[in-house]
Amino acid sequence: MDDSRRPDWAGRLERTWRLLDAPAAALVITTPANLYYLSGFDGSQGYLVLTAAESWLMLDGRYQEAAHAARADGALGPVTIVGVEGSLDKALASHLRGVPAGEIAFEAERVTVAGHLDWMRLTPDRSWRPTFGLVERLRLIKDAGELAIMRRGCRRLSDVARHARDWLREGRTEREIAADIQSALGNAGFSRVAFPPIVASGPNSALPHARPTDRELRQGDLVVLDFGGVLDGYCGDLTRMAAIGQVQADAQGLVNAVRAAQDAALAIVRAGVLTSDVDRAAREVLTQHGLGEAFLHATGHGLGLDLHESPRIARVEDPGRAVRLEDGMVFTVEPGAYVAGLGGARLEDDVVVTSGQGEVLTDAPRDLLVV
Amino acid sequence: MDDSRRPDWAGRLERTWRLLDAPAAALVITTPANLYYLSGFDGSQGYLVLTAAESWLMLDGRYQEAAHAARADGALGPVTIVGVEGSLDKALASHLRGVPAGEIAFEAERVTVAGHLDWMRLTPDRSWRPTFGLVERLRLIKDAGELAIMRRGCRRLSDVARHARDWLREGRTEREIAADIQSALGNAGFSRVAFPPIVASGPNSALPHARPTDRELRQGDLVVLDFGGVLDGYCGDLTRMAAIGQVQADAQGLVNAVRAAQDAALAIVRAGVLTSDVDRAAREVLTQHGLGEAFLHATGHGLGLDLHESPRIARVEDPGRAVRLEDGMVFTVEPGAYVAGLGGARLEDDVVVTSGQGEVLTDAPRDLLVV
Repeated sequence: MDDSRRPDWAGRLERTWRLLDAPAAALVITTPANLYYLSGFDGSQGYLVLTAAESWLMLDGRYQEAAHAARADGALGPVTIVGVEGSLDKALASHLRGVPAGEIAFEAERVTVAGHLDWMRLTPDRSWRPTFGLVERLRLIKDAGELAIMRRGCRRLSDVARHARDWLREGRTEREIAADIQSALGNAGFSRVAFPPIVASGPNSALPHARPTDRELRQGDLVVLDFGGVLDGYCGDLTRMAAIGQVQADAQGLVNAVRAAQDAALAIVRAGVLTSDVDRAAREVLTQHGLGEAFLHATGHGLGLDLHESPRIARVEDPGRAVRLEDGMVFTVEPGAYVAGLGGARLEDDVVVTSGQGEVLTDAPRDLLVV
Repeated sequence: MDDSRRPDWAGRLERTWRLLDAPAAALVITTPANLYYLSGFDGSQGYLVLTAAESWLMLDGRYQEAAHAARADGALGPVTIVGVEGSLDKALASHLRGVPAGEIAFEAERVTVAGHLDWMRLTPDRSWRPTFGLVERLRLIKDAGELAIMRRGCRRLSDVARHARDWLREGRTEREIAADIQSALGNAGFSRVAFPPIVASGPNSALPHARPTDRELRQGDLVVLDFGGVLDGYCGDLTRMAAIGQVQADAQGLVNAVRAAQDAALAIVRAGVLTSDVDRAAREVLTQHGLGEAFLHATGHGLGLDLHESPRIARVEDPGRAVRLEDGMVFTVEPGAYVAGLGGARLEDDVVVTSGQGEVLTDAPRDLLVV
């Protein structure tokens, strides 16, 4: 990453602090993706303590060396590294004794009931206040640096998808193909897979969350290929359909209906549209094809440091819960239809709203790949 | 899996219910590994509601088909599948209206503060009681079927490690090697990696939790190879050391010290010994080599459906918190030493206590592999 692309950690820390709905003495961040977003620290465990004056990153022995190395590289934000021997929770409690009076805010969607009980026991004179999705609210809108990374990741993911023909052959197993996809993602420079690749063939394609099995591909199979990679922390996610030889007319019809549903949803993505409208656009097309009941999941999910984040592209019971699309939002559009006895189909692309318009970031061909 | 090896789901459900320390109307299980252990359901989300009379598995649309397929295969325990449209939490609240009066117990180490607040809001007339590690207490002792799976997994993992020579060559990058390991695990039949493989070379080997980078292997490098795979749900975890050509005498000394520390720890594993004693055995050897401060983590962790579970093989401040080893416990023994400017070394094997004795399940050669 060149220096001009360093994330604006100071701005992110400050905006997070300002999002608190009432004054607090400190805010304790424990969600790994939020730690990374706010400080550049890229480990599975650590506590970031924000106060009005200063921020501390508390880490145990496993991570201190990595954090100091990141600092030397300029890859760590304006936070003071606090090395901890032993329990991070005890160290947090003792560190909080140095913080002015007032409530301690924490991330209620990350901290477990057991963790919260522990903190309360260790800080008998403090009161803890739950917060909900503070940092996630900032992460919802990607900045230029984040979008540059995600564009690059989605392009690479599309390049990987262009090699699908090399993996697919009658007699090969779903597991073998999934292993090929894993390798291809590694070779393409992704630091890790965003999730274990899904390869679902024949009857297994009718399971929306199938996992690869030892089933061998056969003539007439539909094959769902769903995979993603993480580049510089950000996820890309893509699904393409293949067929082994000629498939039944009904199966081809299923794929065509899903394609039409995806086209309809992609066509309406722009600033100001509600997430529920994007979902409805896909759902209506599938319903017109008699596949409304076969569409077993939401149309899409936000994408970023997490594989699933806001905005959710789904039906809402209460219209007030839909999100109005804005510039900088990135999400998948992935309608699917699953029919036991026939098979399933799903197509998934990643989209950003930018300059008011929708732009598809993944550019691999969407046609049914017949091998 | 042949039928004689079906897990005793009914017994596990019953023993879990009996572990409740006070009467409850129901116990809600939400931890995925616990869902799998108690019912055979292998998805990322679902609620298992235990009562004295019956158990229900509540699933949303994504997973119902898979659960019914598992049932048809005999791969699901004695639980009633409840299909849910929309919110699982609302469905749970409404389902609990049919349960007799009394507290609802839940898993405090899994449920977040936000999730708990939601449940309380949706069930205003119920009181919720936190429980801690109930199912984990059962999972600590592996039964014969579990051990058979883990033996097989550790053997396969060792076979993968025997191919390390094929991956390592001056000029190749850590990332390329990690991708090879990923493929090798897939080809060996693991359903997924237990964690993204760690390949840490040269200066990076001094970071206990390094991630693969684009650094190319060079003459004189120490290389840490740490990887694991999941077979039929159970994790195996292994670390081996390699060197590219001749390494400095100090680096060889580091590897020898870690090997001696691992030997010492493995030698004392048997029923009745405390986990803290196993840790001390490794730590004392490293301290004798002047590397006590360079051993930055615990000696090991329990292994099973989770990559990290009980028992933890570590120092304890309070001796009452150490675990006394028993038959059926499976854990890693993985001392390491990390010296900035020199490099790091770690060796990791998986061990079971059986018939009172320790038995190493991973049998790949532990010698420094010089390529």
